[in-house]
Amino acid sequence: MPKFLDTTQPDFEQAFAELLSAKREDSPDVDDVVAGIIADVRARGDAAVIELTERFDRMTLTPETLAIPAAEVDAAIAEVSTEESEALDLAVKRIRAYHERQMPADDSWTDESGATLGWRWSAVSAAGLYVPGGLASYPSSVLMNAIPAKVAGVDRLAIAVPTPDGQINPLVLLAARLSGVDEIYRIGGAQAIAALAYGTESIAPVDKITGPGNAFVAAAKRRVFGKVGIDMIAGPSEILVIADKDNDPDWIALDLLSQAEHDESAQSILITDDAAFGRAVGAAVEQRLTSLQRRAIAGPSWRDFGAVITARDLDEAASLSNRIAPEHLELCVADPDALSQKTVHAGAIFLGQFTPEAIGDYVGGPNHVLPTARSARFSSGLSVMDFLKRTTLSKMTPEALRAIGPAAERLAQSESLEAHGLSVKVRLDALNR
Amino acid sequence: MPKFLDTTQPDFEQAFAELLSAKREDSPDVDDVVAGIIADVRARGDAAVIELTERFDRMTLTPETLAIPAAEVDAAIAEVSTEESEALDLAVKRIRAYHERQMPADDSWTDESGATLGWRWSAVSAAGLYVPGGLASYPSSVLMNAIPAKVAGVDRLAIAVPTPDGQINPLVLLAARLSGVDEIYRIGGAQAIAALAYGTESIAPVDKITGPGNAFVAAAKRRVFGKVGIDMIAGPSEILVIADKDNDPDWIALDLLSQAEHDESAQSILITDDAAFGRAVGAAVEQRLTSLQRRAIAGPSWRDFGAVITARDLDEAASLSNRIAPEHLELCVADPDALSQKTVHAGAIFLGQFTPEAIGDYVGGPNHVLPTARSARFSSGLSVMDFLKRTTLSKMTPEALRAIGPAAERLAQSESLEAHGLSVKVRLDALNR
Repeated sequence: MPKFLDTTQPDFEQAFAELLSAKREDSPDVDDVVAGIIADVRARGDAAVIELTERFDRMTLTPETLAIPAAEVDAAIAEVSTEESEALDLAVKRIRAYHERQMPADDSWTDESGATLGWRWSAVSAAGLYVPGGLASYPSSVLMNAIPAKVAGVDRLAIAVPTPDGQINPLVLLAARLSGVDEIYRIGGAQAIAALAYGTESIAPVDKITGPGNAFVAAAKRRVFGKVGIDMIAGPSEILVIADKDNDPDWIALDLLSQAEHDESAQSILITDDAAFGRAVGAAVEQRLTSLQRRAIAGPSWRDFGAVITARDLDEAASLSNRIAPEHLELCVADPDALSQKTVHAGAIFLGQFTPEAIGDYVGGPNHVLPTARSARFSSGLSVMDFLKRTTLSKMTPEALRAIGPAAERLAQSESLEAHGLSVKVRLDALNR
Repeated sequence: MPKFLDTTQPDFEQAFAELLSAKREDSPDVDDVVAGIIADVRARGDAAVIELTERFDRMTLTPETLAIPAAEVDAAIAEVSTEESEALDLAVKRIRAYHERQMPADDSWTDESGATLGWRWSAVSAAGLYVPGGLASYPSSVLMNAIPAKVAGVDRLAIAVPTPDGQINPLVLLAARLSGVDEIYRIGGAQAIAALAYGTESIAPVDKITGPGNAFVAAAKRRVFGKVGIDMIAGPSEILVIADKDNDPDWIALDLLSQAEHDESAQSILITDDAAFGRAVGAAVEQRLTSLQRRAIAGPSWRDFGAVITARDLDEAASLSNRIAPEHLELCVADPDALSQKTVHAGAIFLGQFTPEAIGDYVGGPNHVLPTARSARFSSGLSVMDFLKRTTLSKMTPEALRAIGPAAERLAQSESLEAHGLSVKVRLDALNR
């Protein structure tokens, strides 16, 4: 049974704290196995990747067939239906348009001392995107990772997607093609992450690796972090819906279930200011769970981690939302814009009852890779910024150095860093000669 | 002896690759000790922090004296000389002005489908800043971490600074006061990181922890990552100077030594297009090393990790610089702006011979917390962005949902996520009734 909480009850704080701290995921400790795989790939390159792919994916590859050639991509793409192709086209167009607006500007200015200061953004040269394997791999995930990279200006974008027993989702290949991916390798697991980070004879190393994966992939990403950049390590998905009574309980039930169907560890929470509405949504969820295709996943998620919270009013709902810091936040209330001003910690906000979260998963435009496990308190979803870095720029004139150099000299002395101070002093001395 | 390399020599590629991959730091494995300390602080709170502080810092504290009271800060600040105080004032003013320009803008727009999209930036609520302890703790490091946090709008900014045997640098307290720090705790090590991340009876938890520290602090930051956000784990400092022959060798020598004096593991590299100038700089470094206060640190750094590379021309120098991806890059050439267009992977660039790197450490304005160990290929220095997070916003009208909802439904079907599709379908059905 999901939890039904009420903020007016004396045990609410304790129950809410338990909800916040519930451990939803058992991470198997695969770190030693992964360390061995990475060392093997670093030592033996292609040969190690090929052996591991044979063992885990039952695929016999050669250095020449690690990459999927364009003709094979073409053939797979030809299988995609027009409806699916058009839907992907719309998604690409909207995601690209949104991310193009994210591009930050360079800046440069001269201040009153005469110093010219600024910064310049530049793209990561090469990025790798991991895509989980088999027929269940998600084309939307390819778009959400690859489009920001290409919008940022990444020159070389490689995908690693395992193809166990040769199975590959043609939509994944089409999504890669539409988003401008340059190389596609049919490899997976820790061996794919190691190959992307360190390179092999046939796979050039990248500078940044993003994309979701299983425990082996996550452990490998943690291990190669530092050698390359990585995105966040995502936990199970979450949604918080704040809804007043003027909603169709079935709509809200489906929104909750659209997270629950991802994963038995996913979490769906409703906060409402109307207890009867909360009960109606709970009943609608149970009704939908009798027939939903993925009820074997969504059912346990809802029963183990789901919750319906009745709050005194929407202000209290917003305050609880900030403590949850949800990955996805739906505001199904009369004035969602006003309420959203009060919900400051959230990965993505969906405003109003005609914005189901699923729109954001596919075609809304914003990224669907978002901070989980309360990390929206301090982090953001994937964006072009993940594929850019900023170089700061400073240029002193003799006058600027005269104006601010003595303070630098003084502080260097205070920190007992003599050479720092001298590097300023010799220049000032020359100017004053 | 530092390495003298020449790009025209046949062994250059191998020597350069060795220079790039030289392991400069032995990280002691303190992870088990740190795990124990964190568990202890989580279990016993203040009592554990107080016991550990007694053991490591020889300080007897109580829950009431963990924080340094304002009166004690006032008394310490009164010891600071006018010259030092004025120098810090100038640094604060310039660093604040630079970081205020970094503040990103919110955005919101309505596209042709009728969907309103956008994003909103908001500050992390509470941040903790670690400051290494004793009289050697650096006030400039306080400014470089605290000012971006406060400019970003962090409401509650706490500092942890160990005070072994009661020693504290008054300039650190003044820097904290000038940058608007709200709380100062006299604790350090892994116990300080644990207290900031998980909270104790007397110390409220924060959402993000930044700042440098020793191996215990670094290991603790890695372990609490996920529970809170952290900044990068910095490695030893590095500088690359590209200089033509029209420079005073002694100026360049001091710039190289101003990194070398930080740490025996620091690395200073000169690339020049004039071999005789390179030798002159090498001689000037040796001359300065006969008298430099910190020659016992700078000497080993220069001899073990220093290098002078003679390149065919400045284009080749830029290309080598991009392979090094230095933390600090000085361009002491006739047209530094033109050359900087070609050096795209660097944490910070200092243009022209009147911009010694030390200016950027203190009073230039840009942040001095920068990516080390070649990570400028994929990451940036500290900025206001480290204390902000972005929430994406989407709002569909009925018309917008009609326009783009069917594509979302189609893609949800392709991914076998039925509830995702149904959450769109029930709304479209209602609109079409």
